[in-house]
Amino acid sequence: MPGNSFGKLFKVTTWGESHGKALGVVIDGCPSGIKLTEKVIQVELDRRKPKSKTISTPRKEPDKVEILSGVFEGKTTGMPISMIVFNKNVKSADYNNLKNTYRPGHADLTYEMKYLNRDYRGGGRASGRETVARVMAGAIAKKVIKQLFGYKKMKIIGHTTQVGPHKSKKFVEKEIENNEIRCADKDAAKKMIEYIRKMRVEGDSIGGLVEIRVKNCPYGLGEPVFDKLDADLAKAIMSIGAVKGVSFGAGFNVVSMKGSENNDQYKVVKNKQIETVANNAGGIYGGISSGEDLLINIAVKPTPSISKKQKTVDIGGKEVGMSIKGRHDACIVPRLIPVAESMVAITILDHLLRLKAID
Amino acid sequence: MPGNSFGKLFKVTTWGESHGKALGVVIDGCPSGIKLTEKVIQVELDRRKPKSKTISTPRKEPDKVEILSGVFEGKTTGMPISMIVFNKNVKSADYNNLKNTYRPGHADLTYEMKYLNRDYRGGGRASGRETVARVMAGAIAKKVIKQLFGYKKMKIIGHTTQVGPHKSKKFVEKEIENNEIRCADKDAAKKMIEYIRKMRVEGDSIGGLVEIRVKNCPYGLGEPVFDKLDADLAKAIMSIGAVKGVSFGAGFNVVSMKGSENNDQYKVVKNKQIETVANNAGGIYGGISSGEDLLINIAVKPTPSISKKQKTVDIGGKEVGMSIKGRHDACIVPRLIPVAESMVAITILDHLLRLKAID
Amino acid sequence: MPGNSFGKLFKVTTWGESHGKALGVVIDGCPSGIKLTEKVIQVELDRRKPKSKTISTPRKEPDKVEILSGVFEGKTTGMPISMIVFNKNVKSADYNNLKNTYRPGHADLTYEMKYLNRDYRGGGRASGRETVARVMAGAIAKKVIKQLFGYKKMKIIGHTTQVGPHKSKKFVEKEIENNEIRCADKDAAKKMIEYIRKMRVEGDSIGGLVEIRVKNCPYGLGEPVFDKLDADLAKAIMSIGAVKGVSFGAGFNVVSMKGSENNDQYKVVKNKQIETVANNAGGIYGGISSGEDLLINIAVKPTPSISKKQKTVDIGGKEVGMSIKGRHDACIVPRLIPVAESMVAITILDHLLRLKAID
Amino acid sequence: MPGNSFGKLFKVTTWGESHGKALGVVIDGCPSGIKLTEKVIQVELDRRKPKSKTISTPRKEPDKVEILSGVFEGKTTGMPISMIVFNKNVKSADYNNLKNTYRPGHADLTYEMKYLNRDYRGGGRASGRETVARVMAGAIAKKVIKQLFGYKKMKIIGHTTQVGPHKSKKFVEKEIENNEIRCADKDAAKKMIEYIRKMRVEGDSIGGLVEIRVKNCPYGLGEPVFDKLDADLAKAIMSIGAVKGVSFGAGFNVVSMKGSENNDQYKVVKNKQIETVANNAGGIYGGISSGEDLLINIAVKPTPSISKKQKTVDIGGKEVGMSIKGRHDACIVPRLIPVAESMVAITILDHLLRLKAID
Repeated sequence: MPGNSFGKLFKVTTWGESHGKALGVVIDGCPSGIKLTEKVIQVELDRRKPKSKTISTPRKEPDKVEILSGVFEGKTTGMPISMIVFNKNVKSADYNNLKNTYRPGHADLTYEMKYLNRDYRGGGRASGRETVARVMAGAIAKKVIKQLFGYKKMKIIGHTTQVGPHKSKKFVEKEIENNEIRCADKDAAKKMIEYIRKMRVEGDSIGGLVEIRVKNCPYGLGEPVFDKLDADLAKAIMSIGAVKGVSFGAGFNVVSMKGSENNDQYKVVKNKQIETVANNAGGIYGGISSGEDLLINIAVKPTPSISKKQKTVDIGGKEVGMSIKGRHDACIVPRLIPVAESMVAITILDHLLRLKAID
Repeated sequence: MPGNSFGKLFKVTTWGESHGKALGVVIDGCPSGIKLTEKVIQVELDRRKPKSKTISTPRKEPDKVEILSGVFEGKTTGMPISMIVFNKNVKSADYNNLKNTYRPGHADLTYEMKYLNRDYRGGGRASGRETVARVMAGAIAKKVIKQLFGYKKMKIIGHTTQVGPHKSKKFVEKEIENNEIRCADKDAAKKMIEYIRKMRVEGDSIGGLVEIRVKNCPYGLGEPVFDKLDADLAKAIMSIGAVKGVSFGAGFNVVSMKGSENNDQYKVVKNKQIETVANNAGGIYGGISSGEDLLINIAVKPTPSISKKQKTVDIGGKEVGMSIKGRHDACIVPRLIPVAESMVAITILDHLLRLKAID
Repeated sequence: MPGNSFGKLFKVTTWGESHGKALGVVIDGCPSGIKLTEKVIQVELDRRKPKSKTISTPRKEPDKVEILSGVFEGKTTGMPISMIVFNKNVKSADYNNLKNTYRPGHADLTYEMKYLNRDYRGGGRASGRETVARVMAGAIAKKVIKQLFGYKKMKIIGHTTQVGPHKSKKFVEKEIENNEIRCADKDAAKKMIEYIRKMRVEGDSIGGLVEIRVKNCPYGLGEPVFDKLDADLAKAIMSIGAVKGVSFGAGFNVVSMKGSENNDQYKVVKNKQIETVANNAGGIYGGISSGEDLLINIAVKPTPSISKKQKTVDIGGKEVGMSIKGRHDACIVPRLIPVAESMVAITILDHLLRLKAID
Repeated sequence: MPGNSFGKLFKVTTWGESHGKALGVVIDGCPSGIKLTEKVIQVELDRRKPKSKTISTPRKEPDKVEILSGVFEGKTTGMPISMIVFNKNVKSADYNNLKNTYRPGHADLTYEMKYLNRDYRGGGRASGRETVARVMAGAIAKKVIKQLFGYKKMKIIGHTTQVGPHKSKKFVEKEIENNEIRCADKDAAKKMIEYIRKMRVEGDSIGGLVEIRVKNCPYGLGEPVFDKLDADLAKAIMSIGAVKGVSFGAGFNVVSMKGSENNDQYKVVKNKQIETVANNAGGIYGGISSGEDLLINIAVKPTPSISKKQKTVDIGGKEVGMSIKGRHDACIVPRLIPVAESMVAITILDHLLRLKAID
């Protein structure tokens, strides 16, 4: 059954496999009159590329976007926008052994069980390359939010808050893009990168924690009781390959918090605006954004492709040992950030349009 | 915009307010020929009722279900099933003060900002009573899974794994329904209940952790890349009022785990079946169920309605103190369990039908 | 699979059977702040009732609407609006023979084949009574269009243009509700009614033609290439039980028209407004409304329930003769008009909201 | 708002403009394991090409399909299938005058009003070239129906039943593809073609009537009460550019038929199968297919692009004369047939999958 579309009013449909001819996305519902060039999208695609050989895969893909429809004389027409990225640096030979053995922690076995016919080259559709399409769509979502809604101050900021035992201890926004791990605390960043280097040497990988912060998020987003903003964001984020958990504001800490501690009490600030004393809820109450910053926490698992030897089973049902060669990320966290930001941008734009319909 | 339907093939649409005439649900897409009586649904509705005055609200609602359509001579007809529960024990007077003051941690303010016209009686649609409709739908979902798919061994088990500082240390399934907090560890249960009693005395409330375990879950559920099983479950769970976080298997622990620790290595067990050594993924790979137990962790916040005095703002924009009287839960966790089970059942059935369409 | 919802932003979900406890509808997506009382809906429900024993069934149903949710202090809240009508005048005994024999021209056999378990009482869900729910939703749609969009001059006018051999020859709007057949030409109306009387005496029934004219329809409605306004209207209209064809403007006459005859050439009228010389397209080009009147033609079949003897088959597969007793309409056309108007109103409102989202 | 997807389980999303870089379609929900090559699709694309210079446009497009994803080693994988056709024979200069003047009978003006930013080159998205995408999807739908469901005898046959005053008088299936107008009556075909030739000489165009007949259609398709098979087919057909009306079986003739004439009485034929004496309903009762042939009638308007001089208005709002040059069809009917067949195939497959989900 279909599962490759996301969004109701800004609808994103993605397609493509890791080692197929190309990857792409069709956006249906983009308002007309938005200034759009391939450059706007390329910037975000480039952010998704590996920043460092220490942390990430050495596979080099130009990931050059081409717009095929829906844009005329530099502006969107309201018609579906089709975008494509051709796969170039495809070494299918690397993956020939994947044909016969299921990699632990990967989707090889479940795809085989469900579809019987599986494109085993580099994970096929279950590969992280699939997120190329999400980033292209996210770039447009960000652009539309800015131009159509004039939310020029709204900002979606993703950053790494933990890798292994190392936690970020401060939030200096401008540091984020200055280091390879996208951490807002440059000292923590150093420790994280050093730790990942160690993992790579060991033939291992490591997980991490990401926070997406949406500054100056508009209020009123979210459609109770099922399409609550946090519910839709949770789905958006959890649909990214390596994510194992998502929470908002105080998140799992609420488990041991009292109502009197966790409740966001109100105060009146300048211009008679109402604000909360804390923002434990992460900017969402009853599924509707309050106008405060959204705070989204994302648990990212260690990449399952490791060269360390593991126990697994082959297609004949025999237990075998496996050591995964090829070009892999020792920590996927920094590259997941533009993807998570994209999913948040798409979700917020979709809800902005939903709000506009009834406003 | 619409947001009150959930599911694509087993589609649930809910309606009703806390202090309105009634609450209800329409199920569209229930297969025909399923044996169904009001009793099957009543059992689950009764599980949702307060078990104890210590923990829960003393508001007493009979919550008597009535089936209005879609069932003929004791069996479903394939037509929409409409079910209704009339509100009986409505004391709107209790809530008259809510008209003028926004309760901290509640949806009062965001609803007011978004809709302008707000049913302030007992939280209106944002009340926990809304979940009555979810439980009615969940009861039918459980029944269909059993009868249509013959998954008689499949079992959706919700239990409390933490309240405040007290954690469950063992899993004895039969203990769960034997104590008021629905904990599988009876010693931990005692400590949890005692702790909640203390909270009530203090005029406070407390959060908790719930695990939903799906035993003998069928494999092949989930539609990549956006309608992954974990993505849809995350949305289903996060759409429940008090939930602030959801994770699968090892959950947020993956943040500090290595690939070699977190990866679920395979072994061959009896009948040539493949199993994982651990089940850190919680039974889902690449968004598709593997046939192992689903493990879902849910962070539940402390109920925001507390009698302890809090700072807030009134509709005139003036800072005021507020102490919430009325009939509230000191810990919502045990009552949330049947609701979360229902959402999981609905999601699984929906995906079973999606799988069936292409199988 | 679900099939009982219509609309994307103004979403209507209906339920209920002819001889069940009740019929109802849930509207999800109705904007908040719309003044709404049961009276507004009752007026339209009353229009749907039989106007004359000559033409229509003598079954007398009070069809008294009750609003159960989504309205607070006389205004909509943005939450789902649940409405119910209880069935009162139920004589199931009338239909006991339907259990064993399939009525020609009815859905008895196809329902049996598809669902196996069939509510045979009065046609169950396939009965014309199902349209009670559509009319309730349509009444609200009309109200929202007026209040929210200020389209006070927009008017959805349904009228009978042909019954058997008798055609309406002029359009005098105020005559429509003055005669039992809802014809805008009072002389034709007389002939039509006389003809229907004759049919009833013969134990037979007769078909007819309806035009729905939408005056002062806003421009810009319709979402190419699949959700074109005419495509969505065609689905809306064709989903009404007795309809066998739908066309726009010149309709099936285009078959023998030349481009030079059929093309709507443009002229400039007062205030620099552009108008067409004719309106052969019925107000829609490329699936988008032009601002001119919508013209929709609907072919309505003769009601299949006739007392004249017919050949059919029983559930044992034996050929038998059948004469349908009970309370039936000799011509359903005038009662179908409020239903068709409702479907048009729902479709137009849905598209108005879609337009608003991107405008 | 999005409007470029069709189908719920077999979901087709199209994109592309007449004079853009390419046209394409993404199919989400195609079952895995279906044998698929580009050749299967090319055959249908070739049927859509002009057969004759008399009737159709001389624009020559190779319309060579390329599959970009979702197929591996000759079989579908269950992943989205992306297909593309590049536009080659683009003469945008032909259309430069369209920038400033609205063609009568075309969507130029409504697109301008709705989207403000309009791709005027050759009609942009409103061009008939958009149907290339529909035909690619339809080819796959036909293949899946055959292989997955084993409905090898099911056949979707489109043919021209009227052009101008000339009607087809017999149905000889094998004649259809033997003449340029796709008429099953070869004598009528000659008259039709001669008539069209005359139209072309006059600088005019002509409409026509198409019947789509689905032989050996499976029973049980259609989801009451809104997603009835005839309702979904009506939407599918009406969404094709040139269509102004759609009807089933006796169609608009029911207007003057009696119940005793129109009702499909039952008889028992060989193997205890039940059949109707006539098939006035066109194979659908209560929105569900009965297993008899589907009979769908389609009114096709004359192509609005004619060289005869017409009155229109330019973008400055001034009345002007216009004579449309360029490469146009004098009668679009024969080329519309593969498109209509495709939409029927997509709708039937979608409903087959829906049926399978609950069967």
